[in-house]
Amino acid sequence: MKIADVVGTVVAPVHAPFYTGRKLLLVQPLDANGKPRGRAQVAVDRAQAGVGDRVLVLDEGSSARDLFGDALAPVKTTIVGVIDEIEIRGDVAYRATERESPAAPRRRTS
Amino acid sequence: MKIADVVGTVVAPVHAPFYTGRKLLLVQPLDANGKPRGRAQVAVDRAQAGVGDRVLVLDEGSSARDLFGDALAPVKTTIVGVIDEIEIRGDVAYRATERESPAAPRRRTS
Amino acid sequence: MKIADVVGTVVAPVHAPFYTGRKLLLVQPLDANGKPRGRAQVAVDRAQAGVGDRVLVLDEGSSARDLFGDALAPVKTTIVGVIDEIEIRGDVAYRATERESPAAPRRRTS
Amino acid sequence: MKIADVVGTVVAPVHAPFYTGRKLLLVQPLDANGKPRGRAQVAVDRAQAGVGDRVLVLDEGSSARDLFGDALAPVKTTIVGVIDEIEIRGDVAYRATERESPAAPRRRTS
Amino acid sequence: MKIADVVGTVVAPVHAPFYTGRKLLLVQPLDANGKPRGRAQVAVDRAQAGVGDRVLVLDEGSSARDLFGDALAPVKTTIVGVIDEIEIRGDVAYRATERESPAAPRRRTS
Repeated sequence: MKIADVVGTVVAPVHAPFYTGRKLLLVQPLDANGKPRGRAQVAVDRAQAGVGDRVLVLDEGSSARDLFGDALAPVKTTIVGVIDEIEIRGDVAYRATERESPAAPRRRTS
Repeated sequence: MKIADVVGTVVAPVHAPFYTGRKLLLVQPLDANGKPRGRAQVAVDRAQAGVGDRVLVLDEGSSARDLFGDALAPVKTTIVGVIDEIEIRGDVAYRATERESPAAPRRRTS
Repeated sequence: MKIADVVGTVVAPVHAPFYTGRKLLLVQPLDANGKPRGRAQVAVDRAQAGVGDRVLVLDEGSSARDLFGDALAPVKTTIVGVIDEIEIRGDVAYRATERESPAAPRRRTS
Repeated sequence: MKIADVVGTVVAPVHAPFYTGRKLLLVQPLDANGKPRGRAQVAVDRAQAGVGDRVLVLDEGSSARDLFGDALAPVKTTIVGVIDEIEIRGDVAYRATERESPAAPRRRTS
Repeated sequence: MKIADVVGTVVAPVHAPFYTGRKLLLVQPLDANGKPRGRAQVAVDRAQAGVGDRVLVLDEGSSARDLFGDALAPVKTTIVGVIDEIEIRGDVAYRATERESPAAPRRRTS
């Protein structure tokens, strides 16, 4: 999985039932130190993430189809979790703040 | 998925029934800011895209086969949608214009 | 799929029935402008390609196995077509010539 | 597989049964000479690895699902072993020390 | 497939039956001209390769599982052949010598 920041949204009609009503989020992968690294991707959200959240991105079709319970979904890049904290060699390198994720209850939904 | 610009067409006979009558489009992946990044790819179109369109590219074989409803199609890189708008941190970073996609009805076909 | 130039051949016994009698071609991926980009790969040929041809390379195992009709073939990188022409924004960027592919009938075989 | 150093931990609720109680480790891929190379990844641990261990990372969904014996687990990047030694052209390039992996018995668990 | 040089060995217990007794080799991918390019990888050997051999590496899980005849093996990067010769545009760019692969009979085993 990758660590990424949700930086925006993409509006594009995808003609497949799976995409009906789904939000497409633009995510920027990050390195361990939190710096952007690599090309931005468009992900499907499964963690109620929003712009400003730091997230976990899982980039595999079978995993995505399992998560969404749809064996034929044409999907690969998926946001699977909103990150609360990253610790590097014992030090807190990132911690989600109220400001960064104002709608805190979002990430507690099951 | 990737964001890419359709920049051209490729003529190459592929000896597989799936490719009969299919257009091969040359797409240039872009970064979040709309700048070219990474190597160009050849994609199969499933969104009635054309040169000048900014598109969503899904690069997975199983997804492509699901979208085309052909379980044995030898296909991976697929254009799954023409992008109408990209918003980055609340600002419109890209919006399709009439000039950029003159044949507007194309993308409204189901 | 990638655009690549066939630049050479590789001789290496692969102990799997699928490889008996198969030619291994060294291909150099190219960018949209025809410049080498990325590491060279070794591909299995399914388009009667030869050194000097510009080709389409499909890099997925399931697709390769479908194309060769061998569900258990250990194969991934496959040349699926010899390119006749690439057009970028309306201009011809590449066109196969007699000189570049002297054995022209090769690519007309079905 | 890749060689990587476990550099940290990530806390992020992933709403899938597979992730209940699982530790997410931040791993930094390395080159042959032990220098960081490429973007950090978040891996699921199957080798009782911890921060400071040099590990083997297997980055494929089917392999991960086989290892965990869970055919529907949404998982890809997995730590499959803690490295004891790396030898390059006959010289020891890396050897795990007591200091680097104090809880030595961890890696002897079956 | 990639061309790579076998540069070393890795000792790491992987707790899966498939790995019992298997050697893990460190391989450095090469470009067409034989120069190192890209990050080193750890591969499972299926070609009786050793340090100093130039090899063909196939990096796909399904292919690896087919080659080893083990449908559930957690394996991806596999050495599938030792390279005897590479020819680029008609010139020999690489040829295995007795010195480079002293135990010549190794590669003749079926």
